[in-house]
Amino acid sequence: MSSTAGKVIRCRAAVAWEAGKPLVIEEVEVAPPQAMEVRIKIVFTSLCHTDVYFWEAKGQTPVFPRIFGHEAGGIVESVGEGVTDLAPGDHVLPVFTGECKECAHCKSEESNMCNLLRINTDRGVMLHDGKSRFSINGKPIYHFVGTSTFSEYTVVHVGCLAKINPLAPLDKVCVLSCGISTGLGATLNVAKPPKGSTVAVFGLGAVGLAAAEGARIAGASRIIGVDLISSRFEEAKKFGVTEFVNPKEHNKPAQEVLAEMTDGGVDRSIECTGNVDAMISAFECVHDGWGVAVLVGVPHKDAVFKTHPINLLNERTLKGTFFGNYKPRSDLPSVVEMYMNKELELEKFITHTVPFSEINKAFEYMLSAKGLRCIIRMDE
Amino acid sequence: MSSTAGKVIRCRAAVAWEAGKPLVIEEVEVAPPQAMEVRIKIVFTSLCHTDVYFWEAKGQTPVFPRIFGHEAGGIVESVGEGVTDLAPGDHVLPVFTGECKECAHCKSEESNMCNLLRINTDRGVMLHDGKSRFSINGKPIYHFVGTSTFSEYTVVHVGCLAKINPLAPLDKVCVLSCGISTGLGATLNVAKPPKGSTVAVFGLGAVGLAAAEGARIAGASRIIGVDLISSRFEEAKKFGVTEFVNPKEHNKPAQEVLAEMTDGGVDRSIECTGNVDAMISAFECVHDGWGVAVLVGVPHKDAVFKTHPINLLNERTLKGTFFGNYKPRSDLPSVVEMYMNKELELEKFITHTVPFSEINKAFEYMLSAKGLRCIIRMDE
Ligand SMILES: NC(=O)c1ccc[n+]([C@@H]2O[C@H](COP(=O)([O-])OP(=O)(O)OC[C@H]3O[C@@H](n4cnc5c(N)ncnc54)[C@H](O)[C@@H]3O)[C@@H](O)[C@H]2O)c1
Ligand SMILES: NC(=O)c1ccc[n+]([C@@H]2O[C@H](COP(=O)([O-])OP(=O)(O)OC[C@H]3O[C@@H](n4cnc5c(N)ncnc54)[C@H](O)[C@@H]3O)[C@@H](O)[C@H]2O)c1
Ligand SMILES: [Zn+2]
Ligand SMILES: [Zn+2]
Ligand SMILES: [Zn+2]
Ligand SMILES: [Zn+2]
Repeated sequence: MSSTAGKVIRCRAAVAWEAGKPLVIEEVEVAPPQAMEVRIKIVFTSLCHTDVYFWEAKGQTPVFPRIFGHEAGGIVESVGEGVTDLAPGDHVLPVFTGECKECAHCKSEESNMCNLLRINTDRGVMLHDGKSRFSINGKPIYHFVGTSTFSEYTVVHVGCLAKINPLAPLDKVCVLSCGISTGLGATLNVAKPPKGSTVAVFGLGAVGLAAAEGARIAGASRIIGVDLISSRFEEAKKFGVTEFVNPKEHNKPAQEVLAEMTDGGVDRSIECTGNVDAMISAFECVHDGWGVAVLVGVPHKDAVFKTHPINLLNERTLKGTFFGNYKPRSDLPSVVEMYMNKELELEKFITHTVPFSEINKAFEYMLSAKGLRCIIRMDE
Repeated sequence: MSSTAGKVIRCRAAVAWEAGKPLVIEEVEVAPPQAMEVRIKIVFTSLCHTDVYFWEAKGQTPVFPRIFGHEAGGIVESVGEGVTDLAPGDHVLPVFTGECKECAHCKSEESNMCNLLRINTDRGVMLHDGKSRFSINGKPIYHFVGTSTFSEYTVVHVGCLAKINPLAPLDKVCVLSCGISTGLGATLNVAKPPKGSTVAVFGLGAVGLAAAEGARIAGASRIIGVDLISSRFEEAKKFGVTEFVNPKEHNKPAQEVLAEMTDGGVDRSIECTGNVDAMISAFECVHDGWGVAVLVGVPHKDAVFKTHPINLLNERTLKGTFFGNYKPRSDLPSVVEMYMNKELELEKFITHTVPFSEINKAFEYMLSAKGLRCIIRMDE
């Protein structure tokens, strides 16, 4: 039992007071975990687009002040009532979507969209009592997707924590909390390219490159990257991308360019852009008879996916995935093991590191599209 | 060796001289089979919508005079050069799509869309020499989808013939040539409902009822039929349909009605209407996390399938199928065995029988939506 268990912890957190304004490092109070909750010490966290998106809060009903952050690695400090799966000292990855292990989705072998703990970007409080565990001078500071990892300590529902190998370096495996697992799982769990197949990846950001990494692991013979920014190809080569298409450099749709390059279409395609035109291209570029397209990108709320039904009748499959179809508690530990066994490379995703005090630099890197993942060291 | 081998056969055929005009029973000459072709004696044939559609030829570039027909059971009379798989006396089902066994599709485990012998509704001649094997006084009468079964004898590419159990009654199994296998395979090969699942079938024509039969065989616990014609439900009960929805009787979209009936959506849905709104409903009515929708109906050429991409990202799968994903030569014999083993019931699909001389009656039944399949007895 740690000496802090059951008590309020005072620690540093990066608070977003207003949409789009730099975060401010503040001293916050973190209440003890309630029933089915766990308080964890965050050791490393990284920045993902989703944080930036809800921090910018354009066109949203904003929830501020708020503590962002959802990709991280931490250590359990104390556990609330009813928590039996985790104990102080356990190494964990918090995840923005959870696994209650009791709902129809958790019981289904196919779904990871837990009814109870599915992502909710509007909620800024804990499920148990509808309150926040963070405060400054008694005023609540709101949570973000149940994780709020831009704080030295945070409180998370036990269903949103994957217990991982304590030997895994948290400064590397923290990136498995969100984007990297999403892309990797989209390929390995959903697209499932057979060995030797041709795979197209639309969007060569961190998620798309993780999808490419999945294709490399699966033994794809050709991995064709598609992006509107040609410079992305250089970096993408490290992830096994063998060819590149920039739709802007062609005067016909990307799906036609890809069909010509591949004698009728690719075997699998994975869309990691969030752009609906890319989604349509990603679907229409797969080979008839056996092609499978997987959508990963989060689309604009008014986006409409359109295609001629004959493209489906010609035996193409279209699927979408959420968090790469990984169930956070059941499956993430084995993804960490893939890294430990050197099947999966994570180092190449980590292009920057900053101390916690300079967290706003991580936002600048992302806003200027520099690099892939920036690790934030909480102890500095 | 039959006495007719190598010679022209004179026999009766129902010739469509003009679009939409009653067929005329004529004496035609049927040339001997060329390389990789087989001449067969048709014993029973049945009428399918596709015959009617190309006979009406609305908005098409019509190929007339033509001999329609593509659902049938026959016996091999003689074989052309290079045919080793079939011999005179073999019982066969001709199929509108073939299996060359050599192209990428035939070699793929997933596809049945043979490059060489894929359906071609515009071609009225044989592949080998671009000529017709039918003539009247030396003038060619054109083929239809490589089968032209409304003739006592016809010539078919060996790749479009499934060799079946000679004990199987041809007056029953002939319906497996097209629509029934299409619906059955859509469920058993593509939707693959787990035992105990809830299945929606859109369109309760012969194809949809065959899809329902597949769901019954797979052990679905609920089979919800959806059709604009409420009277279809009565007949559908024989096919295991347990509940019925008529979208016209609700003031909200069918997908919402189904979601309410099933606590969030059905496990599988199979669309057998050809109507694009039904396709969209069939997709959107499947449960998030694990639902699979399969499109079977042939859409209007200008139809556009539209949905919000979030419906896909929520882990729904959308697929289409052609001939129920059955490879005609490899797989159809085992479907005949399902009938022989009493796993599959065919009698309930056969609602009418007419002698060949009254073939136009079969067209009348179909045009007035009477019954499901009308068997045409060639010997009368
Ligand atoms: N489904 C999930 O669970 C999940 C989880 C994390 C991220 N995501 C989503 O995945 C997507 C990718 O995330 P990321 O962090 O890699 O983003 P990113 O912005 O780093 O990369 C996206 C890339 O797509 C490219 N792109 C944009 N439009 C394109 C088009 N029309 N054609 C080709 N390329 C195009 C951009 O140039 C960019 O390189 C986002 O939509 C994100 O919201 C989904
Ligand atoms: N993919 C293939 O290989 C293949 C093979 C054969 C037939 N088909 C297609 O399958 C479809 C069904 O064939 P069939 O012979 O059973 O046709 P059918 O006309 O006998 O049955 C179609 C049924 O769909 C119903 N329907 C029409 N619009 C609807 C809507 N919006 N909502 C609900 N129900 C609706 C009709 O009332 C009718 O009962 C056709 O489009 C046909 O072209 C496809
Ligand atoms: Zn759950
Ligand atoms: Zn993220
Ligand atoms: Zn073939
Ligand atoms: Zn047919």
